[in-house]
Amino acid sequence: MSSRFAGLTPLLAPRSVAVLGASSDPTRISGWPIAYMKSQGFQGGLYPINPNRSEIQGLKAYASIADVPDVAIVAVASEVAAAAVDDLGKKGVKAIVMFTAGFAEMDDAGAVAQAKMVATARSYGMRILGPNCLGVFDARRSYYATFSSSFDSGWPVPGRIGIASQSGAYGTHLYTLARNRGIGASLCVMTGNEGDVTVGECIGWLAENPEVDVIAVYAEGIREAPGLIAALEAARAARKPVVMQKVGRSELGTKAAKSHTASIAGDDAVTEAIMNEFGVFRASNSEQMLDIAHTATRKIYPVKNTLGVITVSGGAGVLISDVAETLGLSMPEMPVDAQKRLRELVPFCAPRNPVDATAQVSNDVTLVKTFTESMVRDGGYSAVLGFFSMTASSRRWPAIKEQLNAVKDENPGRLYALSVIVPPEGRDELEADGWVVHEDPTRAVVAIDAMGRFGEAFAKPVGAAAPNVGAVTLPGVTPTEAEAKRILGAAGIASAPEAACADVEAAVAAAERFGYPVVMKILSPDILHKSEIGGVLLDVSDAAGVREGFALLLSRARDAAPSARIEGVLVAKQLKGGVECIMGIMRDPVFGPIAMFGLGGIFVEILKDVVFRRCPFGPDVAEEMIRSIKGAPLLLGARGRKKADVKALAETLSRLSAFAVAAGPTLQSIDLNPVFAMPEGEGAFAVDAVIEVG
Amino acid sequence: MSSRFAGLTPLLAPRSVAVLGASSDPTRISGWPIAYMKSQGFQGGLYPINPNRSEIQGLKAYASIADVPDVAIVAVASEVAAAAVDDLGKKGVKAIVMFTAGFAEMDDAGAVAQAKMVATARSYGMRILGPNCLGVFDARRSYYATFSSSFDSGWPVPGRIGIASQSGAYGTHLYTLARNRGIGASLCVMTGNEGDVTVGECIGWLAENPEVDVIAVYAEGIREAPGLIAALEAARAARKPVVMQKVGRSELGTKAAKSHTASIAGDDAVTEAIMNEFGVFRASNSEQMLDIAHTATRKIYPVKNTLGVITVSGGAGVLISDVAETLGLSMPEMPVDAQKRLRELVPFCAPRNPVDATAQVSNDVTLVKTFTESMVRDGGYSAVLGFFSMTASSRRWPAIKEQLNAVKDENPGRLYALSVIVPPEGRDELEADGWVVHEDPTRAVVAIDAMGRFGEAFAKPVGAAAPNVGAVTLPGVTPTEAEAKRILGAAGIASAPEAACADVEAAVAAAERFGYPVVMKILSPDILHKSEIGGVLLDVSDAAGVREGFALLLSRARDAAPSARIEGVLVAKQLKGGVECIMGIMRDPVFGPIAMFGLGGIFVEILKDVVFRRCPFGPDVAEEMIRSIKGAPLLLGARGRKKADVKALAETLSRLSAFAVAAGPTLQSIDLNPVFAMPEGEGAFAVDAVIEVG
Repeated sequence: MSSRFAGLTPLLAPRSVAVLGASSDPTRISGWPIAYMKSQGFQGGLYPINPNRSEIQGLKAYASIADVPDVAIVAVASEVAAAAVDDLGKKGVKAIVMFTAGFAEMDDAGAVAQAKMVATARSYGMRILGPNCLGVFDARRSYYATFSSSFDSGWPVPGRIGIASQSGAYGTHLYTLARNRGIGASLCVMTGNEGDVTVGECIGWLAENPEVDVIAVYAEGIREAPGLIAALEAARAARKPVVMQKVGRSELGTKAAKSHTASIAGDDAVTEAIMNEFGVFRASNSEQMLDIAHTATRKIYPVKNTLGVITVSGGAGVLISDVAETLGLSMPEMPVDAQKRLRELVPFCAPRNPVDATAQVSNDVTLVKTFTESMVRDGGYSAVLGFFSMTASSRRWPAIKEQLNAVKDENPGRLYALSVIVPPEGRDELEADGWVVHEDPTRAVVAIDAMGRFGEAFAKPVGAAAPNVGAVTLPGVTPTEAEAKRILGAAGIASAPEAACADVEAAVAAAERFGYPVVMKILSPDILHKSEIGGVLLDVSDAAGVREGFALLLSRARDAAPSARIEGVLVAKQLKGGVECIMGIMRDPVFGPIAMFGLGGIFVEILKDVVFRRCPFGPDVAEEMIRSIKGAPLLLGARGRKKADVKALAETLSRLSAFAVAAGPTLQSIDLNPVFAMPEGEGAFAVDAVIEVG
Repeated sequence: MSSRFAGLTPLLAPRSVAVLGASSDPTRISGWPIAYMKSQGFQGGLYPINPNRSEIQGLKAYASIADVPDVAIVAVASEVAAAAVDDLGKKGVKAIVMFTAGFAEMDDAGAVAQAKMVATARSYGMRILGPNCLGVFDARRSYYATFSSSFDSGWPVPGRIGIASQSGAYGTHLYTLARNRGIGASLCVMTGNEGDVTVGECIGWLAENPEVDVIAVYAEGIREAPGLIAALEAARAARKPVVMQKVGRSELGTKAAKSHTASIAGDDAVTEAIMNEFGVFRASNSEQMLDIAHTATRKIYPVKNTLGVITVSGGAGVLISDVAETLGLSMPEMPVDAQKRLRELVPFCAPRNPVDATAQVSNDVTLVKTFTESMVRDGGYSAVLGFFSMTASSRRWPAIKEQLNAVKDENPGRLYALSVIVPPEGRDELEADGWVVHEDPTRAVVAIDAMGRFGEAFAKPVGAAAPNVGAVTLPGVTPTEAEAKRILGAAGIASAPEAACADVEAAVAAAERFGYPVVMKILSPDILHKSEIGGVLLDVSDAAGVREGFALLLSRARDAAPSARIEGVLVAKQLKGGVECIMGIMRDPVFGPIAMFGLGGIFVEILKDVVFRRCPFGPDVAEEMIRSIKGAPLLLGARGRKKADVKALAETLSRLSAFAVAAGPTLQSIDLNPVFAMPEGEGAFAVDAVIEVG
């Protein structure tokens, strides 16, 4: 491979491996890798390094690195690890797999030692996996740079799923589950402390690896953004689904993540936004991750996913329909004429979808083929799911299976799945025939639905460019509201029209210009809490009201704060009939500026109905964000409401995202709260704006 | 058993079984039950009925019913089923299991035939399971009145879970899954068309059966309410958890349910309300159903559930914490002094919770006991979950297991669960030791959490009685709004104060009585759409305004509808500062009047944030309903809002529920929309009321 992530090849697919301090005892940490690679027949060079031995587990042992290996496995004590790294770097070793613990996961001193060690490695252009990691293995090349005990119960099943996990315990948990289910996951890399190599880079390497079709990821917190972003871009470009289990979702979880891996976990919502952006499927548990990853190895990713269900006993049809509807997976009815034909064959069949050929198949098993064929050819479903449950362990099954296989073989290019209860041998046989086998119909439907989501993500056109908001120069300190609105206004982010008016005639002129009603506020650098002294007037509806209000505000200000400097009155258009929204920017320590959109008031406060996205983005993405929130119907004219100006809202949001990037790293946050989305064609206006600079 | 459901005993636990039209061929439907019962050693009388044979499968065959059996299995053609039922009734048979299909599931004629047949049976006091059912089996008594092919792959595992399913296909699917996981589900009854015996009654019989501890239910639509309610009451009284998979949740699903089982499925939301009322756990799929049912057989139902997690390798702690937090399952930290002690033993352990004893256990395996014991004794968790994943298939496991077992055996009364990857033999061994074994930690946490939900439901005091609203007499036709408010007012359901005023002085007097502001509306039986002619005035704030408004309304009415009869003006208190709610009653065809509560406006319309409950109920239940909706913080004083008068709201809601019952079956629906919940101490008032009578 020659590309961004090719630098990891010596680490993840080395031609030669040295094991520092190799042990003769195959049950010791520094003995396991040799035992594993020997027993599985690693084809590259394998060099035990041990000055006290001439032979280790039947291999010639070396006193020190001689032939320079691609990778060296290091399990020495933490005190001597830095020296070992320096020595290996000098010798020209390309990469290290470091099992040694006692670094950043332990305490601050450990973090410092880790950083120093990694800096040393980098000075030699050498990569480190770990420290405190369980390493990596690739069964296809019998490469086992790991001390995982998971091989006590068996060796990996060959296959085209690659696993990248920050946690060693969970990485091997996942791999073991896969193996026991007969799912082929040959390669598993576990990044531990991520002193150097990150899970993002490993995803990228897997995306570029022609031996991998699907990438399964377990992450606790992303430490580095550019690697992950480039990796997800590479995976999408290569049409390789990424399924990710991201933990640390809860407050409790985040706390545990910090103590467990010394991770500065980015906000979970931010990582989820990144996943959404790249069509990564967020799995809720490891079973779902494997279900989906495994189903994805069939490489059927329909842009328009439809599900047809065939049974011979009814019963689960309702259940399957429930799940499909909840997920939004379409289960169109069979064409009417096809239904008619099937009903002619079996008068009391259910030909709609789910299609139930009924127990009549006991009398004529070819009905299974006839019915299923009609579903594929007439129904045209992109996925066919057969629910046969324990029928697949009955005497009737071999005949039924033969019929099903005939349809499948004659009609390729669809996803064929079965929900059956069979022993492992039966399952493996069906899988070899090309079926995806699930025991539970619910899990089958979830996995089938995910294929359509990948299809949509792969087919999605590149979003419009973010608007050009020109150069942005932020002040050195957090600006006032008026200043903030001026800066944003220059970038095309409109606020409600307002004018500072020194005298009453200017106020009347401004109000006439904006149109009534207007809001009037006393303007004084010495009066911060205007409402408290009655310094704000709403619903001022004509010129006489403006005149009266001007005098009233001045007199109230003089009464309440005789020594305050009065600069006049602020006149602003009062926005009526708009929908209250909220927009904001937060700076994520890993991913930089992240935009937020939600409906204002209770929607944000109580329902947390908000959406996040990495900046910058174009108005098309902004509109997608706006339409994705639960309360979106409020903006889209639900139940006789006026439609809001969603275009203007989207334009404002995308400009805000571009502004956030242009403003550079001193921008800490922006709050536009509220933003009023006016009726269609009337724009969107920020009513309050806070820019925090730091 | 002597109780409400004892009548099902001859059907579900018969002393003797006859098989009508019994076949010599053990692979035919009418041959299977005999083959099964013979091979498994049914201890009661077994009578093949077949006039053409003297012997069936080695048993003496009878020409007709002689010794009267408890139950007769009927698999004859649908055309002769009714005659068979009549004959069996005459002979005094107590119950029938009817496999025969071709009744209500087929067409209207079939429904009529079914009803007639059931009426015949009832005239003899004979019960029918089915028709169109897969029957029943109880492995403990080797009773197999079924033609399920699920025994091709093995016989049930003995155990204390009872299954009741409307679907035969799904009932046996579930049973087969249970058996393959080594989960004991001995008894499974499948009700098919439910011409007579319903799934509710079967639940009741299982609740009264001392051989059953946990009830697993699959339902598509409940057809009969009193049986189900009595059954759930019996189960709760007996502290037997009920786990139910209720399908037909989606519109699509409901459609399929109708075509599949000819069910008039009650609204899914209503069934869910019944489940909530009785603490039934609604499982989202069959794996979850089995996880929870199986975990429940340990009979640990803590009222205050807490989870402690022990590992020796970290990693899954974050994941488990995530799931627990999402579910609301408490994972308190270990006491500080206990943490200190553990840290003294293993300096870099994680002693908080999850507790990670680290790989140090390789050097000293007794640390497993020390750590786990501290969790049980110092942490006091009601459930302990060990995450050991593939470690449980490693060489280290036997020693670790010994330590874990020691803690468990010395500290009974807690729920002990393991998340491990082991082969079936290893799993069965751990289960026999008393552990609940899950492969996936997420599923383990969900099941553990469910035990606390059962505990809470069992411990819940009986709710307060519904208020006495006196006798309710509804008019024969749907009443006007004013009449509706009057009728409801008499039952203590307050509307906003209002008065019909024939002249201006009466209007002023009413306004003064209510306090300002008031709303004024033209009163005329001939003007239906008052707003359209400007016939409604809001915010009338003083006596002068009332006078002016009275004249204005009359003149507008005269202009717009010169011939309309004008009765005067309605003056109503305008409610300010209240929270807009909605209350309603719907009549469910199965469960009768059901109350609904939600927040008004967008909450109901867009977010469907509503709660349902069977009527009647007391104010305590009403308050629970109110507090259960997502938007409840709006009523409870979130973010500096005024607290609403939740007590008054709850009182109104419970009165409405009592009213709905007292009103009798002509009441079709009630809509109180909006109801304003005023600030604390100021009451709750319906502003509009519609009572639909039919």
